[in-house]
Amino acid sequence: MNFGSDNCGPAPSEIIASIVEANKGYQSSYGSDSLMDEVKSHFKNLFEHPDLSVYLVATGTAANALSLACICPPWGTIFCHQESHIQVDECGAPEFFSGGAKLTLLEGHHGKIDPIKLSQTVANTGVLGVHNVQKGALALTNTTELGTVYTLAELNELTSIAKNNHMQTHLDGARFANALIKLGCSPADLSWKAGVDILTFGGTKNGLLGVEAVVIFDPKLAWEFELRRKRAGHLFSKHRYLSAQMLRYLSDGLWVRLAEKANQAARKLADGLAANPSAEIKHPVDANMIFVNLPRATHKKAFVNGAAYHLWPPNQSLGGDDQEPLLSRLVCNWFTTDTEINSLLAVVSSE
Amino acid sequence: MNFGSDNCGPAPSEIIASIVEANKGYQSSYGSDSLMDEVKSHFKNLFEHPDLSVYLVATGTAANALSLACICPPWGTIFCHQESHIQVDECGAPEFFSGGAKLTLLEGHHGKIDPIKLSQTVANTGVLGVHNVQKGALALTNTTELGTVYTLAELNELTSIAKNNHMQTHLDGARFANALIKLGCSPADLSWKAGVDILTFGGTKNGLLGVEAVVIFDPKLAWEFELRRKRAGHLFSKHRYLSAQMLRYLSDGLWVRLAEKANQAARKLADGLAANPSAEIKHPVDANMIFVNLPRATHKKAFVNGAAYHLWPPNQSLGGDDQEPLLSRLVCNWFTTDTEINSLLAVVSSE
Amino acid sequence: MNFGSDNCGPAPSEIIASIVEANKGYQSSYGSDSLMDEVKSHFKNLFEHPDLSVYLVATGTAANALSLACICPPWGTIFCHQESHIQVDECGAPEFFSGGAKLTLLEGHHGKIDPIKLSQTVANTGVLGVHNVQKGALALTNTTELGTVYTLAELNELTSIAKNNHMQTHLDGARFANALIKLGCSPADLSWKAGVDILTFGGTKNGLLGVEAVVIFDPKLAWEFELRRKRAGHLFSKHRYLSAQMLRYLSDGLWVRLAEKANQAARKLADGLAANPSAEIKHPVDANMIFVNLPRATHKKAFVNGAAYHLWPPNQSLGGDDQEPLLSRLVCNWFTTDTEINSLLAVVSSE
Amino acid sequence: MNFGSDNCGPAPSEIIASIVEANKGYQSSYGSDSLMDEVKSHFKNLFEHPDLSVYLVATGTAANALSLACICPPWGTIFCHQESHIQVDECGAPEFFSGGAKLTLLEGHHGKIDPIKLSQTVANTGVLGVHNVQKGALALTNTTELGTVYTLAELNELTSIAKNNHMQTHLDGARFANALIKLGCSPADLSWKAGVDILTFGGTKNGLLGVEAVVIFDPKLAWEFELRRKRAGHLFSKHRYLSAQMLRYLSDGLWVRLAEKANQAARKLADGLAANPSAEIKHPVDANMIFVNLPRATHKKAFVNGAAYHLWPPNQSLGGDDQEPLLSRLVCNWFTTDTEINSLLAVVSSE
Repeated sequence: MNFGSDNCGPAPSEIIASIVEANKGYQSSYGSDSLMDEVKSHFKNLFEHPDLSVYLVATGTAANALSLACICPPWGTIFCHQESHIQVDECGAPEFFSGGAKLTLLEGHHGKIDPIKLSQTVANTGVLGVHNVQKGALALTNTTELGTVYTLAELNELTSIAKNNHMQTHLDGARFANALIKLGCSPADLSWKAGVDILTFGGTKNGLLGVEAVVIFDPKLAWEFELRRKRAGHLFSKHRYLSAQMLRYLSDGLWVRLAEKANQAARKLADGLAANPSAEIKHPVDANMIFVNLPRATHKKAFVNGAAYHLWPPNQSLGGDDQEPLLSRLVCNWFTTDTEINSLLAVVSSE
Repeated sequence: MNFGSDNCGPAPSEIIASIVEANKGYQSSYGSDSLMDEVKSHFKNLFEHPDLSVYLVATGTAANALSLACICPPWGTIFCHQESHIQVDECGAPEFFSGGAKLTLLEGHHGKIDPIKLSQTVANTGVLGVHNVQKGALALTNTTELGTVYTLAELNELTSIAKNNHMQTHLDGARFANALIKLGCSPADLSWKAGVDILTFGGTKNGLLGVEAVVIFDPKLAWEFELRRKRAGHLFSKHRYLSAQMLRYLSDGLWVRLAEKANQAARKLADGLAANPSAEIKHPVDANMIFVNLPRATHKKAFVNGAAYHLWPPNQSLGGDDQEPLLSRLVCNWFTTDTEINSLLAVVSSE
Repeated sequence: MNFGSDNCGPAPSEIIASIVEANKGYQSSYGSDSLMDEVKSHFKNLFEHPDLSVYLVATGTAANALSLACICPPWGTIFCHQESHIQVDECGAPEFFSGGAKLTLLEGHHGKIDPIKLSQTVANTGVLGVHNVQKGALALTNTTELGTVYTLAELNELTSIAKNNHMQTHLDGARFANALIKLGCSPADLSWKAGVDILTFGGTKNGLLGVEAVVIFDPKLAWEFELRRKRAGHLFSKHRYLSAQMLRYLSDGLWVRLAEKANQAARKLADGLAANPSAEIKHPVDANMIFVNLPRATHKKAFVNGAAYHLWPPNQSLGGDDQEPLLSRLVCNWFTTDTEINSLLAVVSSE
Repeated sequence: MNFGSDNCGPAPSEIIASIVEANKGYQSSYGSDSLMDEVKSHFKNLFEHPDLSVYLVATGTAANALSLACICPPWGTIFCHQESHIQVDECGAPEFFSGGAKLTLLEGHHGKIDPIKLSQTVANTGVLGVHNVQKGALALTNTTELGTVYTLAELNELTSIAKNNHMQTHLDGARFANALIKLGCSPADLSWKAGVDILTFGGTKNGLLGVEAVVIFDPKLAWEFELRRKRAGHLFSKHRYLSAQMLRYLSDGLWVRLAEKANQAARKLADGLAANPSAEIKHPVDANMIFVNLPRATHKKAFVNGAAYHLWPPNQSLGGDDQEPLLSRLVCNWFTTDTEINSLLAVVSSE
């Protein structure tokens, strides 16, 4: 009964097998391994974009912060949702990598930036010239941190505002696959065709050991990205082990199947919760995360019975009125079983 | 009729005379001039604090950002009002000097941080350990950017929250003298006795050509400040010209008299405006700034008649309904004359 | 016949097995996995130091630069050998992580810093106070970049100079195991007992997929290191896969056996080369690297016959006089076979 | 008898008068004062370059470091002489402003970069791609730190190497006027016609209170410079006082006359010293600085008699053999009198 995060579960056997397979003989280092050549081809096909560049790093924070540093100068500001990972969960990595850029926080329901707020805020940025930080970059997240998925129309509206203001857009796709399934569109639709210039294409939350691809649709950014990656210690010498995982992930649709399993598990769990009058689901369950209000007593019982998940925000106390609803986050991943789901639902419905 | 800013007027003749006087023969450079020795003594007496250190720089942005960098690590966040100078008017200088610290923006009426908001926000900062930026520093401004003055009790409440959370406090005193006059307290009361660890003691907005003193009450910060100042190009070789101005400024209460003139001018102008039904003063006029709503037609007439001041926020259009009230900022300084005040009041009351 | 680098070979089967083993069920993320608890115990025992802290990262550049940033302020300088990895091979990572510290380059035979040069240079650093960068940190490498090994006496002499000048010492131990074998001493002897404050304990060059341990002997540095690691995107969510490798590496002396194999291979290859009059070995072969002058014609023949290694410095042209000796670097690793060695020797001796 | 530095003397009365004159009524702030418009015209005429941009800052360190940050990325290296001000005297300012660029130190007689060394070093920079820092910028100084002056041919040779390697050139002209006099050429000859892209045009060492002009010949750099200047706290609110000084300095050739006086004083002093067998002049006296070996006893006598100057390097002990020659630096400025020169020569010749 672990719904704590999509980084707590194991990797699928195919991924482990790819590492075993890659561990043979000598290979060129630092990304010039032959497997990486195949990875590049896969990405160009997958995204229908022959001019893209793609680089692998091991963490989402590195992928996001390196990307943002390539599109926002030190004196720029990054427009992002106030609950975005780059603001809340990265210990200031975007500020570090960019050389001190600012993050301008935007509101919006269900983890999505309100386009009107974005328009107004951008319009008011930099109006006093050098006295202000300048319009820097737009940072989106899809699947959002609250488990919702921007539609293509919503994405296009936001990235158009960026483009009209001479800003580029980064998409944090730590859960890109989960969003793709929800929308039923192509990777191209969900990225460069929707105005995205640089993409964190997540692997870690969807089954890899620690591999994220940064997909760069603007060729002018590629060399700077390479230098920043090396300078930040994110270029792997034994790069083949990253390449192998990503290659296997992309082959025969594994990456999509893994995310489908996670989304389906979340759908099943959400449906079960919705049948329970004491549970109130806060945000649309578009992907693999459920934000649900449950009575404090239910949480206590769940934890006693071995369930692992976070109250939201985390680190809240369990002391207080047993009937008071407390928000929690339940995350499913490819490894989530029906048994786990049913066990949790049993706890909740026994309330 | 210039109410644009306290940096548009000239310097008083005493200050110019001090420069002429200092311009004799040879002097040691880089702050080891004999005049600076006197400045140090003055500050120790004035602030009743024999262990303080004091350094001169030429701009408020430098004074603020260097100070904050000494008390907030790169992975910390600086708690400040959302309308503070460090957030709005310094092109990201605190981020640059600190190596990428974040600014956490707080609301509060009349430009003052709401202590409850501060408490809550601080309590929610860094709760997830390394995943979050850490509690860094508190940044206050007195006189605030909206022309109001924190009472000593208000200051103490805020700095206590900082201390209880192991943070140090910087006070941006670009208009320190104006606040002092409002409160009728001592410089010590308004700084270290109120929990301030490092102070920007403004001179430029109050008559100097470009001199700010950074007063450091925590001796452990002094050497780091010196290194940061030099490294940032803010240590003057011909330092005597800064010393001379600051020395004259502190002598015989000149600095207080200059601020008194500015505050009195603002009081007179505010009283005149208050007598006019079309004018609505938005914030208490505690010092030398007035934020007043006036009909668009009045602004037009004022500008046509040669008045200089800013709509607030600046860069708004004058197009639109003539009766609609638009906020403006009127700043008085030691050089503001009754003639200017009466001319502006005449324009407004002719409405 | 691959002598290109110690990062081109595969990982030993034990390490792969450890990953397979770790890939079961749920685990806590971000370094709080149970395997990491074991890793910590191992390090405390291995280094006979109950108060050390240890953290895992994936690359040597990250390990080095994060470590140096913890012991050298932005206005300090890092004293290092002019051929050190941090100067030559990390694209300025120490400068980036430290916020702009300088590297002061020192000469010395065989890749070792000359203690007299160090003493003199340190004595001349910072003598003009704030005008100069300050004494920051000492950065050593053992095994050095030229394949030699500092003796304990040599280390102690250098770290004493640092200590006497209030600097801390980082040891880049990307090839720590190889040095240990050469000296036959304990890990404690080669680190904190020799004056090292923070150590990059290499795994990647010695058989791991991409895992380095940063061992911190000064407890005051630990929390800052954790924050810097996260902020730089070097904290792994699925940390268990790093822990598992390091745990297996330390168990039953595997890490020592792997380095022994590499050192023995280099010894055998060096002995074979030494028997050849056209080969001139430039530096003592203390560990797993050989720097050898060979006639250009020999290099050509070797490359034609499939040998992989670098001329030194790399990227030299093979055009020119066939008899002219060109320096090359031959690196052995745990995977190097007698067949490879003999094949290369055959090429050389056929000259 | 003060030969300590060109920043110890007073400003000429014309400069003080310009400040008094500027101190009238209201003026626009932050560089939009009407005086600055005149300054811009003067520079365009003086440098025969209608497209240049010019900005004023108060210190040479700021001018140099801001300029270099505009032409060298964080992952670049700045090629400079090992005795350059940016390396020796600025506490790492170039590293700070650039976001961690490296300085690659070059040798060369008499403070001038050896073009062969430059060529070779540049050719060896960045050859391993992302593993190395990249070719960044060339930083020259004229008048050099050792009081010599590059000829136009020497400048052109060096800047051509930069251009051929896609680097831009900064010229630290803290003593630009002194070099100009030596060469008898035009400001254009000594800057953009010689391949300089961005120039620190010094005022402070030549009589101003603290004003340096950054002259930008590449229009693409201008806006970034403005942002960096503000962000670093180097944009003056009461900018008129900088403008006024620079305007007066440029008017009627004052700037040239001041430097002529300094150079002539140095020439006279050098000639006097040369007549003395115990004095050995180390570098050509091209401008206003003399580097001269004198017996330790002579230094002692000079200091006892009130002479102020630096042994070179500074902070050497005066203990030791009285006949041993010690190097010293004697700096003349516009204010140096014949009396001072004769007094010092009397001390030396009485040896």
